[in-house]
Amino acid sequence: VSATWTTWAETEPELAPDAWTFLRRRLGAGVRPNSRPAVPREAVRLPEPTVPGGFVDRLSDIVGAGNVYTDDASRLDHAGGQSYPDLIRRRAGHVHAPDVVVYPPTPAAVAALLAACSDAEVAVVPYGGGTSVVGGVEPLAGRFSTVVCVDLARLDQLVAVDRDSLLAVLQPGLRTPAAEAALAAHSLTLGHFPQSYERASIGGYVVTRSAGQASAGYGRIDDLVLGLRLATPQGELVLPAQPGSAAGPDLRRLVLGSEGTFGIVTEVTLRVHPQPPVRRYEAYVARTWDAGLTALRQLAQAGPTPDIVRLSDHDETDAGLHLSTAARGGRTAMRALLTARAGREACLVIVGFEGTADDVRHRRRVTKARFRADGLRQLGQAPGQAWAHNRYAGPRLRDTLLSAGVLAETLETASTWNHLPQLYDEVRTALQHALGDAALIGCHVSHVYPTGASLYFTALAAARAGDEEQQWNVAKKAAGDAIRRCGATITHHHAVGTAHSPWLAAETGQLGIDVLRAVKARLDPVGILNPGKLLPVT
Amino acid sequence: VSATWTTWAETEPELAPDAWTFLRRRLGAGVRPNSRPAVPREAVRLPEPTVPGGFVDRLSDIVGAGNVYTDDASRLDHAGGQSYPDLIRRRAGHVHAPDVVVYPPTPAAVAALLAACSDAEVAVVPYGGGTSVVGGVEPLAGRFSTVVCVDLARLDQLVAVDRDSLLAVLQPGLRTPAAEAALAAHSLTLGHFPQSYERASIGGYVVTRSAGQASAGYGRIDDLVLGLRLATPQGELVLPAQPGSAAGPDLRRLVLGSEGTFGIVTEVTLRVHPQPPVRRYEAYVARTWDAGLTALRQLAQAGPTPDIVRLSDHDETDAGLHLSTAARGGRTAMRALLTARAGREACLVIVGFEGTADDVRHRRRVTKARFRADGLRQLGQAPGQAWAHNRYAGPRLRDTLLSAGVLAETLETASTWNHLPQLYDEVRTALQHALGDAALIGCHVSHVYPTGASLYFTALAAARAGDEEQQWNVAKKAAGDAIRRCGATITHHHAVGTAHSPWLAAETGQLGIDVLRAVKARLDPVGILNPGKLLPVT
Repeated sequence: VSATWTTWAETEPELAPDAWTFLRRRLGAGVRPNSRPAVPREAVRLPEPTVPGGFVDRLSDIVGAGNVYTDDASRLDHAGGQSYPDLIRRRAGHVHAPDVVVYPPTPAAVAALLAACSDAEVAVVPYGGGTSVVGGVEPLAGRFSTVVCVDLARLDQLVAVDRDSLLAVLQPGLRTPAAEAALAAHSLTLGHFPQSYERASIGGYVVTRSAGQASAGYGRIDDLVLGLRLATPQGELVLPAQPGSAAGPDLRRLVLGSEGTFGIVTEVTLRVHPQPPVRRYEAYVARTWDAGLTALRQLAQAGPTPDIVRLSDHDETDAGLHLSTAARGGRTAMRALLTARAGREACLVIVGFEGTADDVRHRRRVTKARFRADGLRQLGQAPGQAWAHNRYAGPRLRDTLLSAGVLAETLETASTWNHLPQLYDEVRTALQHALGDAALIGCHVSHVYPTGASLYFTALAAARAGDEEQQWNVAKKAAGDAIRRCGATITHHHAVGTAHSPWLAAETGQLGIDVLRAVKARLDPVGILNPGKLLPVT
Repeated sequence: VSATWTTWAETEPELAPDAWTFLRRRLGAGVRPNSRPAVPREAVRLPEPTVPGGFVDRLSDIVGAGNVYTDDASRLDHAGGQSYPDLIRRRAGHVHAPDVVVYPPTPAAVAALLAACSDAEVAVVPYGGGTSVVGGVEPLAGRFSTVVCVDLARLDQLVAVDRDSLLAVLQPGLRTPAAEAALAAHSLTLGHFPQSYERASIGGYVVTRSAGQASAGYGRIDDLVLGLRLATPQGELVLPAQPGSAAGPDLRRLVLGSEGTFGIVTEVTLRVHPQPPVRRYEAYVARTWDAGLTALRQLAQAGPTPDIVRLSDHDETDAGLHLSTAARGGRTAMRALLTARAGREACLVIVGFEGTADDVRHRRRVTKARFRADGLRQLGQAPGQAWAHNRYAGPRLRDTLLSAGVLAETLETASTWNHLPQLYDEVRTALQHALGDAALIGCHVSHVYPTGASLYFTALAAARAGDEEQQWNVAKKAAGDAIRRCGATITHHHAVGTAHSPWLAAETGQLGIDVLRAVKARLDPVGILNPGKLLPVT
């Protein structure tokens, strides 16, 4: 899986010449394709792994000799996630790597692993798809000397399907495409489509409280988990599948968002859906960001909503048209059409419907009527299909940009509707101020709720060679502080990891942190599980 | 509020003569109106309250002298909830009462109270509407000598409304009718309509994970809580209102269902809805229970659903027609209609729609088409309106029945669709076996989900004079064990209290209980909060 090393795809996609012209004009003349190549993976040298005497044998006894690796290639494959700092470090050849990588083949092996690592005082970093953009899979040792990366790739089975109840029992290491393929054999779908879809794992979704692009329809992963099994150093937490219950606090919700710090999910029972016979994506355009927000709010509150609802601000709308992989003529024509329909501040709206013909017809009609009443103009299916075609392309494009000396990173938040305009302004201003006037800051609403929405920011800037991490960290801190000032959440669906833990106490209060620590102390008294993640380091 | 003493209403409603004939025929000749009157409240003598020296003064300093009561009347008003054992004990004049009743006037007073009670090692029983049917407000002292009942009735304000985000901030002591009246001034509704609606409180809903009759549309309370404040002996947990977040485990969900054992909710931010211009209730009939279950499942899974979806089994359908307060002629005609339309095993289905005209029209059309395809027959609006008219009447009727020597109690559970038929059979058989062949056991589906549904059982039997509690306890244990054997939840919306705590460990596992204990130890280290509730007594 060397593709995880620096690039998301096997090869970096190419941008059209006029896209480079656009980027140079916006970001600066220093932006040039392949001007900052990554250090080849083969050139990276790792320090010898630190492993207690006899411990590899003990691990081999538990998971089988063929499932324990200490070679450099295996360790490099598990050296962090997909944040800009992760990529920068890997491209420079400066990485943290785990000492050992193990592939437990059964849930029982996970449980035994955790007991053994707890006994030996060895840190454990659970690893699913490796797509964390918040440092969630960073192989940190905490107060220990050894890090074991527990890659769940061999726990990749669809265990059971209950067609009557529309439930599926899945193992955590299933990547989404494999999960969907297995469910498709039963004419079912999970309906969870985040941008990390191609690589992210079922277990990762659960422990990070993921939200897919179609979560307005299918629901966040929080809403799809009916039951689960969590292996912990103190035994197994088994929570049966229940459609609804008042039997005390819902402990499933403690596992959701626990990011591998309480245990490792070994099985999850998820709500699934019949595969939709109709999928239809289409576009509208709003004259301004505020007009778009109002239209989305009214649609989300009145219902029924589309399954996908997105609103890009003007800068993102414009940049998207310059950087898309569509032919130049098509992009130019679309820009002209947007301006003609909605003026110089045009904001693109994408909606998507998945369901039966009757259901899609009704929801499309409601959406069209509301959007028209709010002054939005229809753009038809072509831009919607173009969006759907490129929905997972972002991560691939990023490597192309980094090789050209472009800082490319995203961050996201959410708030109630009444605070959303201020949140947008403050975060945007913070990023622009930190990254400079030439930086391109785009934003879109990625998820809508009746009570609020998420904002997803993308920043592109000329990278400061040799100082890339610090350049981003300053911007990230400014944005996080702005989010905090607005009383919004530090993350809507990327999770906490290391990147957001400095802000967690401001969101839950110190007593909230103390409650999480009390839970962790009960399940992981030695503290081996994912040190330095989620909970603020003290 | 003396109505809380033995009867729900100011006066016990009367049943028609033929209803008594029906009950005598089914349950036995011993059933006679007013044959078992309750001991008058005035005749009940309480032991002197046990209060540490100077403690009443300390409480008065915190909440104000006019907000502390140790008189018998105040204590009797807070002597337990509304379960059959509660009513039996009160009717016999055998009650537990708290030693002191306090009415904190502010959230700050609640916090100070908890600190003072923790210092003095005095048990605290939070009290909202007093409608718990699982022992949740039983004034148990645990290992302490004194019980302070904290009645939240003075925390009864609508604090704020955010019309843009459809959110309302409410205090916990608001009873639902007052909350709805305050929201109605803003053309809003909470949409939470459990059978306890007339008395239950906002705080009670939150800490018991309540579900209203229209929760298929408006959502369980779990889904409506966006933010809250919890006063604990260790300080305040403040969780801001968020539409969606991935910032670690959702601590709101730890407070939901905590039943006053972790702290006292002093403020909650709830999702609200515009008041629906159209409310329409109507009825269908299925030929059999199984046919009804299949129709409900298909409707819930395909969506969109009605806001209210209920299916009564044949025994409940039949008993409901005999016992309703409608005129005898109307009831006889309805029985004849049901039999004509659906045969001798006819099962009544009630659906309700609340929304805009366009929305209600669409959902009614979808429901009608699906139900027809599944063989259900329409009965029109009259039986639906009759149901809506009587939706809160059950608790009132119960006192009439108890005075006639009838055991009358309910219990509920939920499971995934695939286990529902077996769950129905086993619980029904367990209750029938325990209460005897003459007992009338009815059941209805009260809430539907795409993945499963709840079952709500009602048991009527000739009460064994002088041995009423034990008679019910045996039946309750048999039903609970049957629920457990089926892997279903011990409670769908009544909560745990004392009644269900013996089964909680079987549902969450011992490790789940240990996690809850760890949370409680952090927030309430002395263990003063609602001793003996939720967590199994060790």
